[in-house]
Amino acid sequence: MYRSARNLQLFSAALSNLRAAQRSVTVRNICPAPGLLHSPLRMASSESFRIERDTFGELRVPSDKYYGAQTVRSTMNFKIGGATERMPIQVIKAFGILKKAAAEVNKDYGLDPKIADAIIKAADEVAAGKLDDHFPLVVWQTGSGTQTNMNVNEVISNRAIEILGGKLGSKDPVHPNDHVNKSQSSNDTFPTAMHIAAATEVHQVLLPGLQTLHDALAAKAEQFKDIIKIGRTHTQDAVPITEVWFLVSSMPHVYELAAGGTAVGTGLNTRIGFAEKVADKVAALTGLPFITAPNKFEALAAHDALVELSGSLNTVAVSMMKIANDIRFLGSGPRSGLGELILPENEPGSSIMPGKVNPTQCEAMTMVAAQVMGNHVAVTVGGSNGHFELNVFKPMIIKNVLNSARLLGDASVSFTNNCVVGIEVNTERINKLMNESLMLVTALNPHIGYDKAAAIAKTAHKEGSTLKATAVKLGFLTEEQFEQWVRPQDMLGPK
Amino acid sequence: MYRSARNLQLFSAALSNLRAAQRSVTVRNICPAPGLLHSPLRMASSESFRIERDTFGELRVPSDKYYGAQTVRSTMNFKIGGATERMPIQVIKAFGILKKAAAEVNKDYGLDPKIADAIIKAADEVAAGKLDDHFPLVVWQTGSGTQTNMNVNEVISNRAIEILGGKLGSKDPVHPNDHVNKSQSSNDTFPTAMHIAAATEVHQVLLPGLQTLHDALAAKAEQFKDIIKIGRTHTQDAVPITEVWFLVSSMPHVYELAAGGTAVGTGLNTRIGFAEKVADKVAALTGLPFITAPNKFEALAAHDALVELSGSLNTVAVSMMKIANDIRFLGSGPRSGLGELILPENEPGSSIMPGKVNPTQCEAMTMVAAQVMGNHVAVTVGGSNGHFELNVFKPMIIKNVLNSARLLGDASVSFTNNCVVGIEVNTERINKLMNESLMLVTALNPHIGYDKAAAIAKTAHKEGSTLKATAVKLGFLTEEQFEQWVRPQDMLGPK
Amino acid sequence: MYRSARNLQLFSAALSNLRAAQRSVTVRNICPAPGLLHSPLRMASSESFRIERDTFGELRVPSDKYYGAQTVRSTMNFKIGGATERMPIQVIKAFGILKKAAAEVNKDYGLDPKIADAIIKAADEVAAGKLDDHFPLVVWQTGSGTQTNMNVNEVISNRAIEILGGKLGSKDPVHPNDHVNKSQSSNDTFPTAMHIAAATEVHQVLLPGLQTLHDALAAKAEQFKDIIKIGRTHTQDAVPITEVWFLVSSMPHVYELAAGGTAVGTGLNTRIGFAEKVADKVAALTGLPFITAPNKFEALAAHDALVELSGSLNTVAVSMMKIANDIRFLGSGPRSGLGELILPENEPGSSIMPGKVNPTQCEAMTMVAAQVMGNHVAVTVGGSNGHFELNVFKPMIIKNVLNSARLLGDASVSFTNNCVVGIEVNTERINKLMNESLMLVTALNPHIGYDKAAAIAKTAHKEGSTLKATAVKLGFLTEEQFEQWVRPQDMLGPK
Amino acid sequence: MYRSARNLQLFSAALSNLRAAQRSVTVRNICPAPGLLHSPLRMASSESFRIERDTFGELRVPSDKYYGAQTVRSTMNFKIGGATERMPIQVIKAFGILKKAAAEVNKDYGLDPKIADAIIKAADEVAAGKLDDHFPLVVWQTGSGTQTNMNVNEVISNRAIEILGGKLGSKDPVHPNDHVNKSQSSNDTFPTAMHIAAATEVHQVLLPGLQTLHDALAAKAEQFKDIIKIGRTHTQDAVPITEVWFLVSSMPHVYELAAGGTAVGTGLNTRIGFAEKVADKVAALTGLPFITAPNKFEALAAHDALVELSGSLNTVAVSMMKIANDIRFLGSGPRSGLGELILPENEPGSSIMPGKVNPTQCEAMTMVAAQVMGNHVAVTVGGSNGHFELNVFKPMIIKNVLNSARLLGDASVSFTNNCVVGIEVNTERINKLMNESLMLVTALNPHIGYDKAAAIAKTAHKEGSTLKATAVKLGFLTEEQFEQWVRPQDMLGPK
Repeated sequence: MYRSARNLQLFSAALSNLRAAQRSVTVRNICPAPGLLHSPLRMASSESFRIERDTFGELRVPSDKYYGAQTVRSTMNFKIGGATERMPIQVIKAFGILKKAAAEVNKDYGLDPKIADAIIKAADEVAAGKLDDHFPLVVWQTGSGTQTNMNVNEVISNRAIEILGGKLGSKDPVHPNDHVNKSQSSNDTFPTAMHIAAATEVHQVLLPGLQTLHDALAAKAEQFKDIIKIGRTHTQDAVPITEVWFLVSSMPHVYELAAGGTAVGTGLNTRIGFAEKVADKVAALTGLPFITAPNKFEALAAHDALVELSGSLNTVAVSMMKIANDIRFLGSGPRSGLGELILPENEPGSSIMPGKVNPTQCEAMTMVAAQVMGNHVAVTVGGSNGHFELNVFKPMIIKNVLNSARLLGDASVSFTNNCVVGIEVNTERINKLMNESLMLVTALNPHIGYDKAAAIAKTAHKEGSTLKATAVKLGFLTEEQFEQWVRPQDMLGPK
Repeated sequence: MYRSARNLQLFSAALSNLRAAQRSVTVRNICPAPGLLHSPLRMASSESFRIERDTFGELRVPSDKYYGAQTVRSTMNFKIGGATERMPIQVIKAFGILKKAAAEVNKDYGLDPKIADAIIKAADEVAAGKLDDHFPLVVWQTGSGTQTNMNVNEVISNRAIEILGGKLGSKDPVHPNDHVNKSQSSNDTFPTAMHIAAATEVHQVLLPGLQTLHDALAAKAEQFKDIIKIGRTHTQDAVPITEVWFLVSSMPHVYELAAGGTAVGTGLNTRIGFAEKVADKVAALTGLPFITAPNKFEALAAHDALVELSGSLNTVAVSMMKIANDIRFLGSGPRSGLGELILPENEPGSSIMPGKVNPTQCEAMTMVAAQVMGNHVAVTVGGSNGHFELNVFKPMIIKNVLNSARLLGDASVSFTNNCVVGIEVNTERINKLMNESLMLVTALNPHIGYDKAAAIAKTAHKEGSTLKATAVKLGFLTEEQFEQWVRPQDMLGPK
Repeated sequence: MYRSARNLQLFSAALSNLRAAQRSVTVRNICPAPGLLHSPLRMASSESFRIERDTFGELRVPSDKYYGAQTVRSTMNFKIGGATERMPIQVIKAFGILKKAAAEVNKDYGLDPKIADAIIKAADEVAAGKLDDHFPLVVWQTGSGTQTNMNVNEVISNRAIEILGGKLGSKDPVHPNDHVNKSQSSNDTFPTAMHIAAATEVHQVLLPGLQTLHDALAAKAEQFKDIIKIGRTHTQDAVPITEVWFLVSSMPHVYELAAGGTAVGTGLNTRIGFAEKVADKVAALTGLPFITAPNKFEALAAHDALVELSGSLNTVAVSMMKIANDIRFLGSGPRSGLGELILPENEPGSSIMPGKVNPTQCEAMTMVAAQVMGNHVAVTVGGSNGHFELNVFKPMIIKNVLNSARLLGDASVSFTNNCVVGIEVNTERINKLMNESLMLVTALNPHIGYDKAAAIAKTAHKEGSTLKATAVKLGFLTEEQFEQWVRPQDMLGPK
Repeated sequence: MYRSARNLQLFSAALSNLRAAQRSVTVRNICPAPGLLHSPLRMASSESFRIERDTFGELRVPSDKYYGAQTVRSTMNFKIGGATERMPIQVIKAFGILKKAAAEVNKDYGLDPKIADAIIKAADEVAAGKLDDHFPLVVWQTGSGTQTNMNVNEVISNRAIEILGGKLGSKDPVHPNDHVNKSQSSNDTFPTAMHIAAATEVHQVLLPGLQTLHDALAAKAEQFKDIIKIGRTHTQDAVPITEVWFLVSSMPHVYELAAGGTAVGTGLNTRIGFAEKVADKVAALTGLPFITAPNKFEALAAHDALVELSGSLNTVAVSMMKIANDIRFLGSGPRSGLGELILPENEPGSSIMPGKVNPTQCEAMTMVAAQVMGNHVAVTVGGSNGHFELNVFKPMIIKNVLNSARLLGDASVSFTNNCVVGIEVNTERINKLMNESLMLVTALNPHIGYDKAAAIAKTAHKEGSTLKATAVKLGFLTEEQFEQWVRPQDMLGPK
């Protein structure tokens, strides 16, 4: 009764808020309509257009762009999120590598060398990042990535046509489907580009970043090795090595490429050997051990390899969260925190609290870690929702995997250069804390038994006295015994 | 034994891969070093610089930029992720609104009107998006958002100085801290900007998007209301209304602003009444019911309001995933699927399977839903890791909340315009499926009991015969009784 | 090449491990086969059986159990996880309430009063927890919860038969489907029981638990209100109030019951008014404001209400994580941590470090918080995967929602009683930290400007000197001015 | 203004609901107070008690229980969740193995053989599951698992005392700390037990379950290999093999044991060689390749190995979700769905829709998959929140890892036996769908080019005609060419 009335009341308030917001001139001025602000075509400020057509009709294409009708159509149909949501440029570059490899193999199998060479040259430009402005599509498109595959086909075909002196949009002499996409399908090229992009990002950005961090932590461990303390940070040097192991274990299936499976994994419309040759070419172009996927059906239908890689990125994030948090807390202060570590000052702190040095690199790293954990759930949800022969969460999956790899790699370098290498130890404070610590009583266990040791610690804690004074006072041992048995430097390992 | 050997072997393989990758010229050409590719200063191609200084020393600042030393320092210290990882522009615009409101209140409290008016004008330009190029910082910076607050202070102060005929970088006559940041701290301004940005995005993008989708679904429900079918989609019109309720319920705490709490929530260095007046100004500027947070400590230390909003965005995503999946499956085909709905053709489908029309809008929507679920986990992890007086995951939290709101809002509009409004029903197929359905036997339960009805359905299923023939053959009823009792049009509600 | 060889090598190692494990006698002794260890029928040690039959054939049912053939069949088909994975007992009790309510309404509509009354009595016993041993089914069964609905029908029908002097398993005079399940379907009863169980758990366990914690924190805030400190914990008292708001906002849709929708939401085979009357009865029996769901289709097909509730439980978890972490860190020590709070000693700490008092209640609470975050993702994934007219993740969804509510409620009480009420403040340490703090320099900003204040703090930090001495030495102010301007007790709010 | 009023109004409504619920007699009868319902000591119905003491005072311990004061104290301090939340029994059994191994090594190092042998015998009984009733503690206790370690020490010491003819609770002649826990600490024993339990569960339950599923899918693939269809399920046989690879890759670090690290990873109070000898003993007892952790600090402080294992379990869940969903959709019907597969009938379906056979095993599997995804997030959050030398989310982490492994293993077996082995193919329907399919037009691409093939498919789709008739009508080819080029059996691979 009362509830539904309240329900109604709140809901009508919601609607009137909504209408108010729609009327609100002020806000509208501040936040222009999505279409204006976020149009992926914002860059297409060209004033001249050419007319192209796809199987659905005619379209106006900016004259200075290599892409064609299908790309334009996608920008019209998917106004979601705007420029920041574009397909990651690493996927585009991976497509450049793949299209080059495919053209080389198609040339071997009889494709007109003139056409093949023009495709190869154009694909090289895509791979080199020279045509980045010609890829306006967002991640939130068809779940198979078809539209990005067509975007690539159109750009390469038009650029190749241009190289050969033809007319943009004529599909002659280089047809986007019949030539650039020859022996391929979106269904096999997009997952291939996903794997190339992911493997390249891991090898180019993430592993070097982790290596940098590991080396710096190892150097610090060496630098501080003679400092005896209660024991909170010894382990930091080792952790990234474990993570590298996990990452490397996740890679083998990422090196498997779907190319050659075509539309449903059967390899229909390709030649025997095409798949293997393309994988070899891609391996040669990237220096990474790519092979053709042994099971093309799986390579199109599932993305377990990337889900697993994302799981390993998640483990790296878990480890980074811990490392950065530990350094943050150990460096907290300058005077009201633990203060065992002295972190480098990189920038002014609070705008109102002059003199405060914040552990900003730790904060950036822990934010990155949280993001990677979120990205991993997105990948998991996407990976688990594949149905039948085709997973249709592909662009979302690769966006998140690449984002995680990039953020962790970049943050590792930033964290190393701007924090780890400059860390110093507050020896005075560490010694003070250690000598005050009640945990040293642990060393008495083998000598006087657990129950008496516990009594000493509890009494010292309650009376605010030292362990030694308390132990002697309780009559459990002599001062000499205490000094002989409780020696921090002897408490670092088994006997 | 064997394991650690294998471990070692794999690890050394990993390292040699790593080194190979580092040597690899080909890959290096394709993927330039992070520093080059991702520098947030990439845009700063200016050739001339001015010298500025912060408490850490001198720095070169591009002459054509309004930002100053602290911004430049952040770009040097946080090379993480590059341009796509910039602080969402909605946060910058929200800062414009806030700085304008604060300057107006400070003017009331005695700030030199000439300075105040210049700040107000400059802040207006920030809010209107005219100075977007002057905000190069990435999300992955200090977790309190201090550097973006300083970026805003520097841009507004320099632009105000310019308006007043002064010299960029001179801090005179408009000082970024003493004037633009007056009575403020990063600790209260950043959460205030977070709330302004989140509320504005919800009201400007998300709620109108959901309304659009709701209206279209309701219209379709009306259009198809006379079609009797087995029952799989009746509910779709209702769902978004529930979501709007959840969203609206989540908003009240988002309308609470931290402004006036300054560094630790005490309001130190502000005047009594400052907080309330700023909230009133922001409410007037945006048309949304902002108020000052009753508890400033909580407003700085925790982000439960945004975690809860993210939870409601997650619920919207859950609902969207279901709606889009239902439409996708009901529209699957054209000939080998359920085929009850006919989805509009918006673009060519597979590049190798001509004629195939993919439910691309459904795919975009479900990818968006998966992303929002992942974003929500990132927000949850960030929200739960706040310690003491200050949560230091702020930029990451607001990035994800804004991304979720924007993607869901935009995708709702795209899904509506390019899919829902064009959906048609395949009446022929629906009738065929319904008449073949064994579920109609349910109508016999009250007449002949559960056990006999079950026997009819099982027999009909096994023998491939119709329910009527089977029922009569089993002797449970007459043909007339069957026709009288089993009428699809009578199976739509209680009696 | 080399990779696939390595792949193969590792895989064959995996398989041989696997086979070794299968051969291993030692391990087998320790971990008996799943069938033995986890059989949900483990309790059915009865030696005598009766023969029952369902539409699939004959089955042996333990003589001393009220459940029947369909329950036994489920235990045979779903040997997943064992006894700890049983359907939560709260769901069973909610079914007791619902079946009682339905029988009362059916009696009004003409069901034989003798049968109705026996059903009502048996259902009461289920609701009161007297028949808990008769519900052996696990959560991992049919996703609609059909088997648990049948388990309930069978138990109530057999118990009612017994009350009326009939023979167990005879379905006479009380038939599980035709009488106990009259006007119902699994599709509407299970979601109804989900909502009853969730609402009851929230009101009986969670809200009282949060109230207990809130009261204790508020009392502590009052007790410590005169202690001036740097500011890290002021907010704790307020937080749970916000959470209660979020929870209460999430409840309205949980109060909506699906009962009366029958199999696909149409209400087929029920009488007009049945749905409303059942909701009224349930409201009367529980004292909670249940109503009939306005849209039965939605109530069967989607679980957005529980997803949203889970989102609010997630927000509570985020808040609890922060509260428990703050108390943990502020109470860290006894001597090497922040040590501002003194936590009560509840039990011996480490078995090897006598005297160490661990913040065990904080640890339990943060573990609960992490679990709730994970539960929420499970609910999200389950909620988003519903297809067409029926979500088939129902048992999993309600298990996680109930688990979250119970754990948060119980943990709040445990945390309050065993930690919060016993917290004391280490005044000496707080004062020491505050007086050493460099943050007091903030108070100088309005008097000497940001740049000079910053210079004082930096110099004092570097030289290890006090703020006052440094300020005077730098010539920025006199000792008198410092003492007049920097007074901690004046730094608690606006002027 | 209006908002905070509404806020207040809703909140006071919430509180009054709360109070109403607390007053409500009906509900109270149904849902007894948490203390009654969930007391982990519910089983301790013994009427006689003995008095024990710990460092905190005296306690009453049930006479018939082997546990002692510290266990009782934990049950008093942690009334969270009740019996279903007990520490997983696999952890207890793993502790039995560990304590036996440690006692054997301690005997080698000089522990009185009489005491050692009694400990070994008692530990064997724990490992064999004979003392399960003596472990009442819940997961939600101290985050280091200290209380469970003490529970184990108490049970083994008292059982050993009993064996030697002593008095329960006397700690003589077998002391729980000085003898059973000798050379150990909770900090190293609990993570050791975690790894033993996880590895054992993976090898005993999960891998055999996946193997069972893989074999069944492979057999089905072989059985159906001659059926040509459009291509939706070919891949299912392969997937679990990939998952086994991921799991096996995750195990090496799980085989590393912390035992010997004692309290902070230094190995203080142990003998050189203790760690290695214990690992060897555990390996011998379990038949699994356990080794001592090379870095004990890491083994105590972080749980990356289990986070990574959880990530691999998550990948398995993703794969299972897909497999079960595919089978569910392909088997949907019987008449209104895709109907390509015929799933076995295991039980009656809907209680109101007789004859309907639900894919219940698929539903159980997908619910399990969703749970595992949620469990993984809980593990991730727990793993990432470790601070300093000790992660204090240990019981929560292992609970979730074990739950995931168990559910996936059991569900695989259930799914195999009750679904996969009984699947049949609806050949008639598959052939019908395939011959109607427009996708066959793909085969024309190499012959007439993409654009013409697309025109045929679009025309046939619009006119509802066959591909052949349309192709001929459009004049693109002859009937003979069509029959020669479009042959399903030739469309299964490259040429």
